[in-house]
Parts: sequence; structure tokens; C-alpha cells
Amino acid sequence: MDAAEFRRRGKEMVDYVADYLENIEKRLVYPDVEPGYLRSLIPTEAPLEPESYEDVIKDVERVIMPGITHWHSPYFFAYFSAASSYPAMLADMLCGALGCIGFSWTVCVLAASPACTELETVMLDWLGKMLQLPECFIAGTHGSGGGVIQGTASEATLMSLLAARCKAIRRVQATNSNYSESDVLGKLVAYTSEQAHSSVERAALIGGVMMKQVPADNSYAVRVDMLKKMMEEDKAAGLIPFYFCATLGTTPSCAFDRIVELGPLCNEENIWMHIDAAYAGSAFICPEFRPLLNGVEFADSFNFNPHKWLLVNFDCSAMWVKKRTDIIGAFKMEPLYLKHENQESGRSITFTHTHWQIPLGRRFRSLKLWFVFRLYGLQGLQAHIRKQVALAKVFESLVRADKRFEICAEVIMGLVCFRLKGSNELNQNLLKRITDSREIHLVPCQLSGRFVLRFAICARTTESSHIQQAWRHITQLTFELLQEPSH
Amino acid sequence: MDAAEFRRRGKEMVDYVADYLENIEKRLVYPDVEPGYLRSLIPTEAPLEPESYEDVIKDVERVIMPGITHWHSPYFFAYFSAASSYPAMLADMLCGALGCIGFSWTVCVLAASPACTELETVMLDWLGKMLQLPECFIAGTHGSGGGVIQGTASEATLMSLLAARCKAIRRVQATNSNYSESDVLGKLVAYTSEQAHSSVERAALIGGVMMKQVPADNSYAVRVDMLKKMMEEDKAAGLIPFYFCATLGTTPSCAFDRIVELGPLCNEENIWMHIDAAYAGSAFICPEFRPLLNGVEFADSFNFNPHKWLLVNFDCSAMWVKKRTDIIGAFKMEPLYLKHENQESGRSITFTHTHWQIPLGRRFRSLKLWFVFRLYGLQGLQAHIRKQVALAKVFESLVRADKRFEICAEVIMGLVCFRLKGSNELNQNLLKRITDSREIHLVPCQLSGRFVLRFAICARTTESSHIQQAWRHITQLTFELLQEPSH
Repeated sequence: MDAAEFRRRGKEMVDYVADYLENIEKRLVYPDVEPGYLRSLIPTEAPLEPESYEDVIKDVERVIMPGITHWHSPYFFAYFSAASSYPAMLADMLCGALGCIGFSWTVCVLAASPACTELETVMLDWLGKMLQLPECFIAGTHGSGGGVIQGTASEATLMSLLAARCKAIRRVQATNSNYSESDVLGKLVAYTSEQAHSSVERAALIGGVMMKQVPADNSYAVRVDMLKKMMEEDKAAGLIPFYFCATLGTTPSCAFDRIVELGPLCNEENIWMHIDAAYAGSAFICPEFRPLLNGVEFADSFNFNPHKWLLVNFDCSAMWVKKRTDIIGAFKMEPLYLKHENQESGRSITFTHTHWQIPLGRRFRSLKLWFVFRLYGLQGLQAHIRKQVALAKVFESLVRADKRFEICAEVIMGLVCFRLKGSNELNQNLLKRITDSREIHLVPCQLSGRFVLRFAICARTTESSHIQQAWRHITQLTFELLQEPSH
Repeated sequence: MDAAEFRRRGKEMVDYVADYLENIEKRLVYPDVEPGYLRSLIPTEAPLEPESYEDVIKDVERVIMPGITHWHSPYFFAYFSAASSYPAMLADMLCGALGCIGFSWTVCVLAASPACTELETVMLDWLGKMLQLPECFIAGTHGSGGGVIQGTASEATLMSLLAARCKAIRRVQATNSNYSESDVLGKLVAYTSEQAHSSVERAALIGGVMMKQVPADNSYAVRVDMLKKMMEEDKAAGLIPFYFCATLGTTPSCAFDRIVELGPLCNEENIWMHIDAAYAGSAFICPEFRPLLNGVEFADSFNFNPHKWLLVNFDCSAMWVKKRTDIIGAFKMEPLYLKHENQESGRSITFTHTHWQIPLGRRFRSLKLWFVFRLYGLQGLQAHIRKQVALAKVFESLVRADKRFEICAEVIMGLVCFRLKGSNELNQNLLKRITDSREIHLVPCQLSGRFVLRFAICARTTESSHIQQAWRHITQLTFELLQEPSH
């Protein structure tokens, strides 16, 4: 395919994409295929000779679409939102064409595209200011902190845990010079909420350290007393607490750990506090939600996913650290070709992102942020958040008005946790009917041992009419379910 | 921006991308900016209100392009190639529009788009067959292995090391029940070549295990005797060898560790052998290069980057494991919402990629493979590899014909290591002149203590005329350098 054909096919693809998104709600949101369905639809080997573009593009509808869950359908209410917007897609096209791999790999420190790393640093400053992060997290203030784009919150959590691990090992060895690294590793304890995302526990597994789950209160949030009690017991048993991952907006119910009270304890005890606000973080650009981030000043690192709720297509997870040297220090290795004499100084933050993440190479993801920030403006982004929170309130009201149902957790952002009053089995049956109908898509969670349905406002194009329609659908299925003799 | 405006702007962007790539060789390949250049070109905060699209797109040339190293210029000869092709870009546009996040997160096992995971499994089978991988790596054979797309080779190496670590800990604890996990961790030793990529050592740092560098022979390859000697000394000292990362196509000189002799040793000694063929792996689709992969049958895992040399835009790193259970086992944690009863069986490989990688979410990257394989065909891809190897031979001949220069390592693939006969300083000065001229871009390496210039055939559009022009440029700068009084 040459440039001329790309011009033609590219424009056709733009129309295909626009058609898909304009008409997405006509498709059933949830696929109806059997595991392994795809293998039988295509050959077992790659073709020897090129096929025609027409044949390939025809197969998108034949092979791919039947197995797609349409995340951007206004009837998709599962998990949390996955961001999508036209400006971000345009930026991604440009990113693909530039195809520069952002890293600094050699003594020629600028080699791998300075624009890529520099725009990222400045965009994380823009975003940090939108969130009113304390100055210590903003690179442009010539402070000691700054931001970086990770692929996912999982990677941000892992990086923070590794940085904390390294710092703790050094601190312990400084006063106990006869401890080996593995002696210390065997004593380190990390903590997170029992409500935290599985990727937090996973980070501890990767890092080879023990992680304990802190019980949450009855609003599903971690409070300081419980963490303090666990830490004291562990210290008495000879263990070394070193890391706490707080969650702002938990996956099951969007609960907020009380970082205002947890932060001072962590600071006193030399515990690295990381804040995972993967979903809810986007909302902190609105002044009315910003108080939920109070206490971030105690954190060593903070992360949220613009690719969830800030109209920036996956993947783009924004992470800030208070001290760049902490995270760079997690990778003690310094081969010549990764070394730059000024790498820990303010100016050369532009060269060091290689040390801030697991992969060495990185795409030019900050272009998406730049396009979205400028083409929506802060007010446009705030309007998007507010609209989705308001839609969640609409759904909450509908549920509350129906005495057969109950709300299971406070509705603070775009997530409503609800259930039929009755057994877990009853609610499992309701969800099964919803899933089988394929018209809307929800996923469940467990709260206090109860099977709960999660209704998350996800698609950018979801309107009140879709919420009303979803609720009619749910109540119709409920009616049918309750008619059955077994109930 | 609505769909109608996206149709218009998207088509403009397609033309911008085609214009950029058609005219890329008119741009100086290397940027001329000072560190921090970008911050002063744009505001310090995001705009409150939306800006016009015209303003944003104008800034691409004003702000971004001056700081770009043009990786796809036919005058870019640095690092290794970063793949780029029009079919891959079209597939990425589709990927962005679908915006599905491939993972299985709940009891509804199909939820996150079955097409995403299933196409990936089948494409890795197609690719594995192109490479003539042993059947045990192919998922569709109902064997115990299969493939997964990682973001980068760094992540593949890390995953393999974590899997090996977990297996080793279990094995040691099975016979030494009084060993704690950290006791074992403190004794584990991993090995890799002194020529291996820094990401291998980094994987060991993350995993908290010791890694030792094995000296290479005078062709920069690791031989079995040296590894065996080191392992025996370590075992005698009470350590536990558990992992060896072989490189096929090292970063400095594209050397090939002798896996045919290393593999049997690793198998005998219960050492996990991972093969990192990040760059060279693509060439194994050509029968004449496939012998370099002989010995892969001894490996537990194998990885290479289609995003380097197989015309698939970054990121797309292909990884295969011989036993799925090994890599899944590295994450012992099994919360209900990630569990599926058949997850280790052949059929449900489609649900388990979440356990094969660091992030939970994943883009629909297999679309790029599907488009590229079908629109080039195996023969088209082979032709691309062969052409680039032939171009390297052209450059090698030019160097060999000039008695002032020497070739520093055997030219097997698309990389030529060369230098001026003389001091390291002389060669550093030559490279500085090349870099400062910005007309072509190379990076150096160290081989046997000597400063060496690497000339890698990178861009898809590089032709013999560009090689000739690059050589004229190098010899002109050499002439000027040697004229200077100091020489």
C-alpha cells in the first residue's frame, strides 16, 4: 500500500469509524458468541500473497464485530467508562505517523524525540494544575516532583511499590548493616484496602513483598484506626511496614479511603503513601469534587486514568511523584547509555522518563492530552464529568422510587450500586437475564457479602433517554423474573 | 467535535500523515533544539474554553516537529528500526474507534470483547507458524503453550523472569520446607550476556533477584562453557541458578547467543531459558535465517518485536510460552472476578491473557498484525526483510572498500558496526560531526572497549540511493575531520 492508496483507504476508514460511532446504539451492546468462535472464521495460516483491501475490510464486520462488546454504546454500563473522543483519535493518528519511540538510549541525550518527552512533562503539569495538585508534584515549578504517563494504573501502582521497596531496603540497611536485601524483603509489609483493585495485590506479588488487606468501614472506606492497629501489630511481630496504597473511588462501589487522616500516619511512620484514583481522579478537575482529593499533600505518588473518564482514548494513565529521585532510585542500575549527568536535576526531567516506567519505549501519548485539553477546554471537560454524575443521580432516583430495589452505596460519582431486595440468587438471576438480553451491559460486585449490580455511566454519548430506557428494560426483566413460579 | 467534523478533520489528518511520510526525507532527520525548548512555546496552563482546531493543528509544525527525530526518514540509521506501515496505521484507527479494553474481569467471562483476545491468540499462532516455532508454542494445537502480545520486550522479559522465579521458589520449597520465600529469593541467580539489553538486568531488579552477566566470546555471543562454569561456581557457593535470558541479535552488534548448545544445559539444570530476539526475530520468517532460531525447542519462552522489523507500528511485542500454566502461575492470586474454571485448559486460553502481562487492560493490538499479514502476505514481509539485509550488505561493501575504516562485527542482518581505524576519540569526533549535521542519524556502541558506530537499516522506504548518499556524507565528514591539524 502506497501513500496514494493510504489516502483513499484512510478516508474510507474515517467514514467507517464515524459511521460506527454514530450508529453504535443500533448494535446489541453485548456479543453472542461461543468461546473460540473466531478461529473457525479465518484461515489457520497467514496468506502467502497479499489479499485485497476489500476482503480485509469486509472481514471486520464478518469476523470482528460479532465478538465485540461495544464499550462506547450509550447502553454500556459495565466496569467503569473507557474514554473516547474524536480529538483523541485524531491525535492518535498523528502519533502513529510520527512513530517515534520516546526514550533516551544513548549518550546523545535528545535522540529519541525531545518533543515526545517534553510535551508529556508539560501536559502532566497542565493536568496537575487542573487538579490543583500541590506544587511539589509539578515539574515546571523546579520542585523535586513531576508527572509521567503510564500505560495503566496497574503499572503506576507497581512503579510506586518498587520505589517504596527500594527506599525501605536502603533505610533499613543503613541502620542494620548485617541485613541482606532478601532479609529486608522478607520483613516488608505493604497495605491496601480489602476493596482495592486486584492490581495492587499483584504489584506486591511482582515485587516479592507481603501485602495485607485492611478492612474497610461500612461505607467501604479505609480509616486510620484500622491501618494503625494492623501496623502496630506487625511492627511488634518484627515486620517492617513500608507502603500503603489508598484508593479514591474503589472499583466495587466508588468508595474513598480517608486520606486526610491516613496521610499523616503514613508520613510519621515513613510509609510510602500511593493514591490510586484510577476512575474518580478525573472528577477532581471540578471544584465541587476536589475536596475528595484533600490529603494528597501527604502522598508520595498519585495516579489516575484520563483514559477512563477524561475523554482520552486508552492507554493514558497519569502518575505524579513528589520526589523524582525516589522513583528513579528504584532502578539502581545505571549503564552508560542510560545515564545523563543532569538526570536528577529539574531541567533534565525531560530525559528521564525511561526510569519512570517498566517498558523502555513509549508512544507519543501526550499528543492525545494536548488535543483533548485544547479542543474541549477545561470547562468542556468539567461539563462532561458533571453531566455523567447527574445521569447517575437520575438512575439513583429511579431505583429509589421502586420499593423492590435498594441502593447499596452512596452515589458520589458516575456509579450506582443497587440490587433487588432479596437473595443473592435472585440478583444473580436478574443479572443473567440482563446479560442474555444483550441490550444493556452491567457487571456485578460483592459488597458485605451481597451480590450487587453496578450501573456505571460510561459512554460519552449516554443521555437521560438511555438511562430511562435502561431502567424500563431492567424493570421489565424484573417483572418477568418475579412472575416465575420459583419466586 | 461531532461525527461530521471528525469526518472532515480525520480526512485532513489522513492527508497530513501521507504528506508527512511522502516528504519526510526533505526534513533534517535529527532535531536542533535545546533541552526544555517546548515549555516556552506553549501556555503554562490548559485553556478554559475550547480552542479552534486550526490553531491546534498549526501548532503541530510550530511546536512538535522541531523536536522530532524522524524515525521513518530513509536517513535514520540509529538504534534498530521502528516498524511503520500504512496497513498497521489503518488498523490502529479501527482499534481506537472500537476502544475496547481487552480483559476478563468478572464472572461474565466474555465481557471485555472476545474478538480482542481471540484474534490475538490466532494471530500469534499465524506468526508462530511463519517462524516455524515448535508445535508446543502454538495454542491452536491444543498443546500447553501459546502466544500473547506484550507492549515491549522489556515486559516480556520481566514476565518470563517472574514466571521462572515463582517456579523456582515452589521447587526449592518443595524439598526445603523450612525455607521462606525470601530465603529462596536471596539465593536465586539469573544469567544473561554482558551484551544483553539493559531491560534484562532491570527485570532482575524488579523481581528482586541477583543477575550475573556472562562474558561473551569474541563474536559477542554467549557459549555454553562460560555459562556452565559460572553456574557451577554459584551452585558450589550455595546459590540457586534458575533463569537464563539468551539474546538472538544483541543491541550493540546483532550477535547471536548459541542457544543450540545453551538450551540443553538449561533443560538439564532446570533453568528457565528465555530468548529475547527483539530485533532479529522478524527475520526468522525467511527460511535462510531460520537456522539462527534452532534451539528454540529448548526454550521456555521466546519473544520478538514485530514493532521493530515486521511493519507493525509500535507497540506490539510477540511472546510465546511453552507452558501457559507456568506464566499464569506467576500470579498466584486468584480473586473471584479474575477466575474462570477452565482458564488453564486449551479452550479457554482466550480468557487468560490478563494473567500473562503486567497491565490488566489491553488495546486491540492484534488488528495491526491481521491487517499487515493479509495486506503484505508472508512473501511481502519476507521481501521487506531481505531488502533491508541486502542494503546492510551494500553499506558493508562501501565501508570495506575504504581502507581508513574497519568492520567491527559480522554483518548478519540489517546492522553494520564500523569505525575509523584509530582512537576512540577520533570516532567520537566523527559521530559528533554526523549528529551535528543532522542529515543522517546514527548511535554508537562499545565493543571490546572500542567506540563503534552502528549503522542500522531502519525505514521501510530506505533505498540503495539513500545508503550511497549516507556514505558520501560520512566520508565527506571524515575528510574534513582528518584535515584538522589535531589529526
